[in-house]
Amino acid sequence: MELYVPRRRGVMLVLSSPSGAGKTTISRKLLERDSELRMSVSVTTRPKRPGEVQGRDYHFIDLTQFELMRNRHELLEWAKVFGNYYGTPRGPVADALNQGSDVLFDIDWQGTQQLAEHARADLVSVFVLPPSTAELERRLRGRAQDSDEVVQQRMEKAADEMTHYEEYDYILINRDIDESVVAVQSILNAERKRRHRQIGLNDFVKALREGQ
Amino acid sequence: MELYVPRRRGVMLVLSSPSGAGKTTISRKLLERDSELRMSVSVTTRPKRPGEVQGRDYHFIDLTQFELMRNRHELLEWAKVFGNYYGTPRGPVADALNQGSDVLFDIDWQGTQQLAEHARADLVSVFVLPPSTAELERRLRGRAQDSDEVVQQRMEKAADEMTHYEEYDYILINRDIDESVVAVQSILNAERKRRHRQIGLNDFVKALREGQ
Repeated sequence: MELYVPRRRGVMLVLSSPSGAGKTTISRKLLERDSELRMSVSVTTRPKRPGEVQGRDYHFIDLTQFELMRNRHELLEWAKVFGNYYGTPRGPVADALNQGSDVLFDIDWQGTQQLAEHARADLVSVFVLPPSTAELERRLRGRAQDSDEVVQQRMEKAADEMTHYEEYDYILINRDIDESVVAVQSILNAERKRRHRQIGLNDFVKALREGQ
Repeated sequence: MELYVPRRRGVMLVLSSPSGAGKTTISRKLLERDSELRMSVSVTTRPKRPGEVQGRDYHFIDLTQFELMRNRHELLEWAKVFGNYYGTPRGPVADALNQGSDVLFDIDWQGTQQLAEHARADLVSVFVLPPSTAELERRLRGRAQDSDEVVQQRMEKAADEMTHYEEYDYILINRDIDESVVAVQSILNAERKRRHRQIGLNDFVKALREGQ
């Protein structure tokens, strides 16, 4: 007799960090190696940039559509940045979790707080820190040919963001990208085994006990 | 300038299962591959058996010594089984955790409950289930040339123990020993990255922000 096999509910995995800590590279590599993990695609009211693809990078929508979604509570979190709106649609995330797929969120501490209000039990949050200020500055400088002043502003923003590490479940100090990818993969694999994510465990154990 | 590097507090990792689910093999393989993990060595009042080594398999002590330890609250958990006493000494566990080493406990649900009372924040508990009743019976039968009646008694005991899966953080269905070892290793690696186990994070982030 074939035993009922428990399924699992998906994980909402949040990776946050000050810019320059390496989060984007970790996310990309993790998505490449883990077939059960998909990226959450946000909606945004900002114009599409060259090279961006509708539905892959963002769902590009207008302000009326955005406000409709927000008013209908169809957004798990949202923010206004430089005059444009961004948000995470609830539907695709709910579907993925129900199907046992995991969803990766590249959002900041404010978005993470909003997600936690809606879905604390599903949420697993990881904060990535740079190994040193020198390394952070090197990465912020390496990204563009900007003036010292602009780099300094980014450093100050990063310093502010870092104070929010206390709100996260896991902390990674990103000394080596590949090591960090393995570490986030371990966190994801472990969280998949959490009791509260197993569906049908009760029936499984009942069947085991009854000798099926 | 060399940045202060956060240390971590060790993990108390409990593996429990009904006998026959494969826990002992998983523990042995995990200890072989993970150099930061050590087994907790219990004290016991039962006589040493041939082949057992004092201080490796157990600390063999007499009843007076056991009662002294228990009365001085030097035991994290204890139990009386078939007239003999068993217990987990607190000192070596506290030392290991403080030094950032992890300690593995091969105890049942009653011991796990006692550990949780003393050290919930340090504790990570994993319950191992067999993949099917047939497999459980095969393993219980394979262990010794016992009568059907004895095997049946073990099956009933296992069935009782299984109901306690609900008290554990993580659930593993042990379909394949090597897969299960990798899964427990992921849980251990992930738990090592928990924010609350990092020591000195506050100073580290402060130094990052101040540009050291």
